[in-house]
Amino acid sequence: MSALDHTHDVNACSWLDSANAAGADFPIQNLPFSVFRRGGTQETFRGGVAIGDQVLDLAALAGTTALQGTALQAARTAAQPALNDFFALGPTAWRALRHGLFALLKDGATAAQMALVRDCLVPQREVEHTVPARIGDYTDFYTSLDHAVNCTRLMLADGDVTPNFRWLPIAYHGRVSTIGVSGQQFRRPMGQVMPPGAKSPVYQACARMDYELELGIWIGQGNAAGEPIEMAQAEQHIFGICLLNDWSARDIQVWEMAPLGPFLAKNFATTISPWIVTMDALAPYRTAWPRPAMDPQPLDYLDAPANREAGAIDIRLEVWLESERARKEGRGPARLSSTSFRHQYWSVAQMVTHHTVGGCALNPGDLLGSGTISGPGPGEAGAMIELAYGGTRPVPLGDGGERGFLQDGDAVMLRGWCEKPGSARIGFGESRGQLLPARRE
Amino acid sequence: MSALDHTHDVNACSWLDSANAAGADFPIQNLPFSVFRRGGTQETFRGGVAIGDQVLDLAALAGTTALQGTALQAARTAAQPALNDFFALGPTAWRALRHGLFALLKDGATAAQMALVRDCLVPQREVEHTVPARIGDYTDFYTSLDHAVNCTRLMLADGDVTPNFRWLPIAYHGRVSTIGVSGQQFRRPMGQVMPPGAKSPVYQACARMDYELELGIWIGQGNAAGEPIEMAQAEQHIFGICLLNDWSARDIQVWEMAPLGPFLAKNFATTISPWIVTMDALAPYRTAWPRPAMDPQPLDYLDAPANREAGAIDIRLEVWLESERARKEGRGPARLSSTSFRHQYWSVAQMVTHHTVGGCALNPGDLLGSGTISGPGPGEAGAMIELAYGGTRPVPLGDGGERGFLQDGDAVMLRGWCEKPGSARIGFGESRGQLLPARRE
Repeated sequence: MSALDHTHDVNACSWLDSANAAGADFPIQNLPFSVFRRGGTQETFRGGVAIGDQVLDLAALAGTTALQGTALQAARTAAQPALNDFFALGPTAWRALRHGLFALLKDGATAAQMALVRDCLVPQREVEHTVPARIGDYTDFYTSLDHAVNCTRLMLADGDVTPNFRWLPIAYHGRVSTIGVSGQQFRRPMGQVMPPGAKSPVYQACARMDYELELGIWIGQGNAAGEPIEMAQAEQHIFGICLLNDWSARDIQVWEMAPLGPFLAKNFATTISPWIVTMDALAPYRTAWPRPAMDPQPLDYLDAPANREAGAIDIRLEVWLESERARKEGRGPARLSSTSFRHQYWSVAQMVTHHTVGGCALNPGDLLGSGTISGPGPGEAGAMIELAYGGTRPVPLGDGGERGFLQDGDAVMLRGWCEKPGSARIGFGESRGQLLPARRE
Repeated sequence: MSALDHTHDVNACSWLDSANAAGADFPIQNLPFSVFRRGGTQETFRGGVAIGDQVLDLAALAGTTALQGTALQAARTAAQPALNDFFALGPTAWRALRHGLFALLKDGATAAQMALVRDCLVPQREVEHTVPARIGDYTDFYTSLDHAVNCTRLMLADGDVTPNFRWLPIAYHGRVSTIGVSGQQFRRPMGQVMPPGAKSPVYQACARMDYELELGIWIGQGNAAGEPIEMAQAEQHIFGICLLNDWSARDIQVWEMAPLGPFLAKNFATTISPWIVTMDALAPYRTAWPRPAMDPQPLDYLDAPANREAGAIDIRLEVWLESERARKEGRGPARLSSTSFRHQYWSVAQMVTHHTVGGCALNPGDLLGSGTISGPGPGEAGAMIELAYGGTRPVPLGDGGERGFLQDGDAVMLRGWCEKPGSARIGFGESRGQLLPARRE
């Protein structure tokens, strides 16, 4: 649980001008982590922190005298090609590094500090990223009531949200091997679908390709098997949050998912944004507990958070689509929807606690998907199947084109940020993934 | 696809007497792999091969002149603390090592060979094992029609097996972090259950603890995302098979599983046997294709195996239960059921091919659970919920005790072997796991 401190001061500025630009995703109050290298090189991947339009190279910084003590140890650990060991250090070390980097980057740093740091900056436009940790297990939740209502109506014969939805954060295990970082391209999946009214399924390319707007929650310190994480401690086990696109093949999904859940419909690709925004950076955007939407009252083990700022997180989210045609004609992408994570029925702490209550072990670098994030209003749905009512009311793209489901060549971008008067803007950057044509047999 | 060769000769014997004992699990025709060290030490774990009552230490052997060429390279690779790199070498290297070890261990080896090998043997009773590979992803299938029929009747309101069962090998992703090797102990899980007729769920210790008799299929060489593995090549991607117990909390499962599948009901523990029996060793026990039970005819992509011995595998399987009472009174365990993997509706090749058809990547060391293995007859069910009809007809243990579901202290042992006239016995050893009392709050 993060308290507000001087690193959240809206008036704090960096000596690096690009960090102070209006609307910048990465001001000095943010300091998100990724794993990167210079693009097109065979350099070793290493941890970095975003500041303005630069990446601060933690491997380079850890070789200087700029940091000391716990912050230096943390930087050395975060300089590896995967952040698992850094995640395992826990909140005290994470915060020491945040405070150390803030001191080096703020307006008022010494000339000597600025000189050391400048040598460790790499322009973001020159870098490539990789998945920032070895993901041991990936779990996908289903925690938006609006999404559940919309999808149940569109995909299942029985139109009611299952009665367990309001009692527990529903989840299932997902696929690690096909999680990719922003820029991921993947083929339209082949698979079995059962056409309406048919007696036998057919093997064909997915005809109902969809995306899902989600957030990815990175586990910091884990727990031993059989030793659950209680609500009061749950958020201390979360390092931070990224954007996550849970690509979904709807026609494959409805045929395969009974009774054990989605499998091939979801395991061909999942695209995350490279930057992990820390729970510390998100502290100003916490909403109060108890959460107004919770009805019925949760069972005790899912209640009783550590403090009054343990409710939802007001992360604003958008989905954009760039068609092949828009790309060819040099036009920008079309915005498909806009919502906020604050509408989510279950909180991140509840997800962590429920995940471990039966004895399941979480490990540093495990990833939780929030489940599709759909808000209550029109245009707030986080998947195209909801926006276009199962393909029956295609969504206009503003260029004469429209989409019921995705077409080959479409790129989908997720964007996220926090913003409000009196607090600095905290941006997530972007998750971009592109659908390629199906494999020719 | 493995052809029969001299390593399958039923008359072949080893100079190590314990390998030739009647009923031994590990004769010279078997040669299964594990990762081990001397128990109670801090030695580095390394690959080993079972022969009779000994483990042949591959790290030690690779330091001698006993093997040459491809076999030596393979032994060096398999000597690591995890077998992933060895799995990635592929069938030619696996077979070269099998042939090299066979030559060293067979009756007729030279005195010099025997002397080198003797120095590399460790008694099995002195070793401890670990999970033999870093498992990137674990997938659990659901491929026994008898199990599906039994469970659907007992667990779901709607009594029919879902129509997709006969068209595709149903599967879902499982939990890697709590997979343990034989000897695993775990607490009875806490969780949410909805009592019959109640309006709200309660949080309590699982009251319907069950096991599931499965086999674990270890992936050797993987495939790139978007590049499916066809049926004709599927078995070349399988290194071997072990026993797997998919512990299941039935009361938690029925409440949580709609619509996305089992989660906490299955992710607290999964117990595998330490020894991986290779597909080469199993070659004599293949049954013919086409498989008689397949109705309807599978879609093309799930048909057309590479040869006529690509059907089921006749692995005989048993489940045994050792109660706290039997342990205290010094009596042996009770046999609960007995069946064969040959009844399984879908084959291992079909599982691999279906898994990748949509573009999912498999990696060396990925693990597939076969799904519960229940045969058609009485006493052939692979889970207690089936044997005891949902707890309504408890199974007698032969000592006055009986079980509707598992009790605290119960240990469940899975055993497996192949046996038939004209072929050597190929044993799997044992998977043993024990249920401890729930955590006191």
